[in-house]
Amino acid sequence: MSADDLVPQKVEAILNPGRMLSDGIPYPDFAAARALDDLAEWLPFWADTAGRYEALGREAIEAGDRVSGGEWLWHASLSWHYGQLMWFHEPERREHGQHKKVEMYKLAAPHLVAPAERVEIEFESTVIPGYLRLPAGPGPHPCAVLIGGLESTKEESYHFEALCHRRGLATFAFDGPGQGEMYFDVKLCADFHRYTSAVLDAIAPRPEVDSDRIGVLGRSLGGYYAMQSAALDKRLKSCVAWGGFSDMSDFDGMPPHTRGGFVYVSGFEDLDEGRAYLQETFDLSQSIGDLRCPTLLIQGFHDPIFPPHQTDLLRAGLAHNPLAEIVVELDGDHCCHNMGPVVRPRMADYLARNLRE
Amino acid sequence: MSADDLVPQKVEAILNPGRMLSDGIPYPDFAAARALDDLAEWLPFWADTAGRYEALGREAIEAGDRVSGGEWLWHASLSWHYGQLMWFHEPERREHGQHKKVEMYKLAAPHLVAPAERVEIEFESTVIPGYLRLPAGPGPHPCAVLIGGLESTKEESYHFEALCHRRGLATFAFDGPGQGEMYFDVKLCADFHRYTSAVLDAIAPRPEVDSDRIGVLGRSLGGYYAMQSAALDKRLKSCVAWGGFSDMSDFDGMPPHTRGGFVYVSGFEDLDEGRAYLQETFDLSQSIGDLRCPTLLIQGFHDPIFPPHQTDLLRAGLAHNPLAEIVVELDGDHCCHNMGPVVRPRMADYLARNLRE
Repeated sequence: MSADDLVPQKVEAILNPGRMLSDGIPYPDFAAARALDDLAEWLPFWADTAGRYEALGREAIEAGDRVSGGEWLWHASLSWHYGQLMWFHEPERREHGQHKKVEMYKLAAPHLVAPAERVEIEFESTVIPGYLRLPAGPGPHPCAVLIGGLESTKEESYHFEALCHRRGLATFAFDGPGQGEMYFDVKLCADFHRYTSAVLDAIAPRPEVDSDRIGVLGRSLGGYYAMQSAALDKRLKSCVAWGGFSDMSDFDGMPPHTRGGFVYVSGFEDLDEGRAYLQETFDLSQSIGDLRCPTLLIQGFHDPIFPPHQTDLLRAGLAHNPLAEIVVELDGDHCCHNMGPVVRPRMADYLARNLRE
Repeated sequence: MSADDLVPQKVEAILNPGRMLSDGIPYPDFAAARALDDLAEWLPFWADTAGRYEALGREAIEAGDRVSGGEWLWHASLSWHYGQLMWFHEPERREHGQHKKVEMYKLAAPHLVAPAERVEIEFESTVIPGYLRLPAGPGPHPCAVLIGGLESTKEESYHFEALCHRRGLATFAFDGPGQGEMYFDVKLCADFHRYTSAVLDAIAPRPEVDSDRIGVLGRSLGGYYAMQSAALDKRLKSCVAWGGFSDMSDFDGMPPHTRGGFVYVSGFEDLDEGRAYLQETFDLSQSIGDLRCPTLLIQGFHDPIFPPHQTDLLRAGLAHNPLAEIVVELDGDHCCHNMGPVVRPRMADYLARNLRE
């Protein structure tokens, strides 16, 4: 079976209202996307939408309206993001969308409130790209390192970053192996934590950042990475897994396009090969015993990707850590995206509370 | 015909996605409200929702998570706001909702980022309540005075205020005659501008506010008030009418619950008496000739409340003012709420640009 057989078939399969709206897709755009008759229209729709925001953004910056300019260019970036995110079956168009997303965010970055400083971290034979943003007031600031998931990337965390900034935290969101910009150089791999450590090497010495108060939050697949990173790098003083899993034993129960996505970003074309690679290499039980800092795991009971069995494995793995808190929201879906207004502030609070002086 | 006959009949009649979501109703709440079978469930649904946010907010503040606490209490306020806003046919329940909205916002105010300072301005035999919020950085700041409409009040402009703050503007949102808290003392009246002037008397001397750089924005019915206020009080250096009208000659074409609302907040029970009062007293042609500051009017071509005829009257009234700009969005509905992500930043930009030093 080829991973190409796992393409989504209907708009509803990739339309996630909780996620999209909490991440910043404006409702009118969401509603128009929901009304599309055919999934084939999805990417072109978002490309058009992005084009309109790009034009608005460029005009606004030209006119001196930098704040609107930055936000509209970010809207262009986010439109490309949601346009391409599940488009694994047409790699060239997906890659074009990725590049446009990156380009739009780069243009937006200096105009955002707070500005996003692009940081390119040389590591081995590649570059880890990320954005540092600071809260108001004098530093050094505690800092939340933000890790995306299977197809969430650093450009998508803009709204979550604002929650952190309002709580006095700086943010550093980056793409690691298999994600966003890095996918082209390094495919998904199970030693993601080495990349997080390279990020810490780069940002901990920054004068704006309090190196003793750095935490990490990872979303979905990023929840695995966050727990692994905080277990293996003690510079991370607090950890939030915004959804998480322990291993890939439940791979076959995931929605088809999620399986297809995992195989794609791992660099495989064949589903069986991809599954074998993932099931061999992803096993948090190898490192979770070293996770000793305050850790919050948020799971949705109705998560179709990380089922309760994974929560049980993580609960067992975290049993040694008296500072670990596992919250299972009984009404929650994947990452509790359907409960964003409740769970997102809570996670930001958790980091802020644990990284306070 | 009694105004009681003009009550809305269906959830769709009062469910305005563009407005509600742009103003800050979380999508999951909106979606649940949209799914209600019967309009009778509307107010109870929002009361329950508000209750949940109130509990979350109080717990968070108790736990020291002030930022979440403030935002959840504001969510409670906004839930009450949308619960009661068209509930003119059950005045007691509407009034209870108004009071809860006010109470929740009062509790939220000191915890918001930026904090909202409640200012109570004694004027004649009443008190004008408002909230002053400041942008980051040292003052004195230019300031946008924000005026609500028929049933929009100072608590609803929280998100728009953030747009202003990010552009370096302070904000002062208040309730005038017929609105929110003031309704109980003073019903809707056509000399609203006297209340705006009382607000200016109170805030212009504040050290945080640059008295030479105060502008005004009014929304819907507030667009009328903003233009009237800026025409008659030259301390206002810029004006935005976020939707507007010139007179009540198109009253009978308005949606039934809008007519019912106008009559209610004017203090009448009988529709004909209410209409006569409104048509006699509302006439912007009396003052618009004095509106000489930079003025932006934003209209939606498909506005069912302020039809193109009203835009024509305003265009004629503003013909003398070379600094006036009238934008008619051809795809726009009332106040272009369906185009919020485009028109809202533009209005904030306009004020910021015209109030810059």
